[in-house]
Amino acid sequence: MSTFKDIHSSYTRLKGHHNSQLGSESFETELMLLARFCHGYLQDKNRVPLISKVVGKEYFSFIKDLKTSRPVRVDLFSEDSREIDTFFKALKLDQFHSVYRATIERAVYTIAISFCAIIDLEKNGDQKTPGTFFEYFIGHCYSKKLKVTPRTRIEALNLDKKTTLPTDFIFDLGIEKPKFHLPIKTSTRERVIQVWAHQRVLDGVYGVGRFWGTLVCLSETKKDNKKSEVVEICLPLQWQLYQMFIAQMKRVYYLDLPEPYMKLNEVFPRIQVKSFADFFFEVDDLTNFD
Amino acid sequence: MSTFKDIHSSYTRLKGHHNSQLGSESFETELMLLARFCHGYLQDKNRVPLISKVVGKEYFSFIKDLKTSRPVRVDLFSEDSREIDTFFKALKLDQFHSVYRATIERAVYTIAISFCAIIDLEKNGDQKTPGTFFEYFIGHCYSKKLKVTPRTRIEALNLDKKTTLPTDFIFDLGIEKPKFHLPIKTSTRERVIQVWAHQRVLDGVYGVGRFWGTLVCLSETKKDNKKSEVVEICLPLQWQLYQMFIAQMKRVYYLDLPEPYMKLNEVFPRIQVKSFADFFFEVDDLTNFD
Repeated sequence: MSTFKDIHSSYTRLKGHHNSQLGSESFETELMLLARFCHGYLQDKNRVPLISKVVGKEYFSFIKDLKTSRPVRVDLFSEDSREIDTFFKALKLDQFHSVYRATIERAVYTIAISFCAIIDLEKNGDQKTPGTFFEYFIGHCYSKKLKVTPRTRIEALNLDKKTTLPTDFIFDLGIEKPKFHLPIKTSTRERVIQVWAHQRVLDGVYGVGRFWGTLVCLSETKKDNKKSEVVEICLPLQWQLYQMFIAQMKRVYYLDLPEPYMKLNEVFPRIQVKSFADFFFEVDDLTNFD
Repeated sequence: MSTFKDIHSSYTRLKGHHNSQLGSESFETELMLLARFCHGYLQDKNRVPLISKVVGKEYFSFIKDLKTSRPVRVDLFSEDSREIDTFFKALKLDQFHSVYRATIERAVYTIAISFCAIIDLEKNGDQKTPGTFFEYFIGHCYSKKLKVTPRTRIEALNLDKKTTLPTDFIFDLGIEKPKFHLPIKTSTRERVIQVWAHQRVLDGVYGVGRFWGTLVCLSETKKDNKKSEVVEICLPLQWQLYQMFIAQMKRVYYLDLPEPYMKLNEVFPRIQVKSFADFFFEVDDLTNFD
């Protein structure tokens, strides 16, 4: 068992790290500790089943006093904390090919959703803290796999003056290599157009193809508190218009992948939407050969 | 004097109108009634001066019990309700050239800010109602001046299938005429990139130049409640990147125009940022000759 105080202290230490320390050993040690605290905290928390309107997926909420958490997917929530340890070991040694993809999928989902669910139970309407944690977590995974630290501003050349462009995480793999543009969102809805628009600016400033846009999202679930129902809000036709007319995203990774977006892998314009677990297995090949 | 009940009933009747009734006489009658109720309601409300960090502009807040309204600009708030009547008369008869531009500027600002300020005083954290009212008000002005009613969805042709694109207000002036794309925001901040991105989709689907993007904003003020300070949040360098690399907006109109954006009229890439009062005087020439 662990307490919210443990979690709060650990998260404060995690936040003490600068972006340039993503991927470092000290960041990873704290992240692992925080993930264990979160798993320990949720051990004895009650759960309420939710009515799922999402075909093929079941969800529950954690409950504490009168508060319920965001929806948690039953089959992706890892009851066994050793799966989390397995993930961190694979990440540390960069040895993913000896681990089951399903284990990675459950581990990353559990790490992300646990922290978010705990903030739902302990705070009132705090959306910022889960979002920031999720950025840290995903940013660290990228930094570790790509072996570079991210930046969040880049120069935008203009004929008459210099200006810098605030960006999501940018991972620069060096000369003649792609650079990754990494927007990270716990959910997207109608705000997703920003992601394509930022990619468009990067394409315009640096040339199409220099930056690979890979969006990472936690899920698209929405809970109706009165009815205890979960729905998934997806806009695949909008995404297709953005992919055709604004910019081309290289990948969209989800920790809880919505079925309506999976179909975008197979139609025109193709958008490769995958489970975030796939990132760990494909990214090396992607940067070398794609 | 009028009560919040008067305002609430009038707003409910206003909302009873469909988008296709924007510009109609019945909509205008209700809008005028609502504007008068708002002005009456605010007559006896106390005001607190705010510390303005915005050069050349002074602001106050209305106050009721423990609640204070958003910042209201001293020189643009019309103490004399006859200025509002003058505006509605000019709008009804489409006779703006016999009215002072300054009167129109104060009248439209007063109509918009009054309703928003009253919602601040009467509701808790309701951002949606002021936003919806502001859309109705600006949408009506466009509909009246352009003599067409707006749509909020358009067809997006795709080779294999048909799909519709949800849009902000679209005013279609007919064959061989420009169509107006009208996003309306009480303030923009970092969300403004959506406006350029939507314009880009329209340019892509229909060809550049078919849709004229004209953004209308109320203001960019932000109030720090603890310090009773007003600041203005402007990102002119970001706007320039969007104008160069995403799409080209034809106009940006403000009811409380921020100085940092006025400079965009004179540099490359040019963005024409004007007072919303100018819309009434220039739109006829714009659609005929620009």
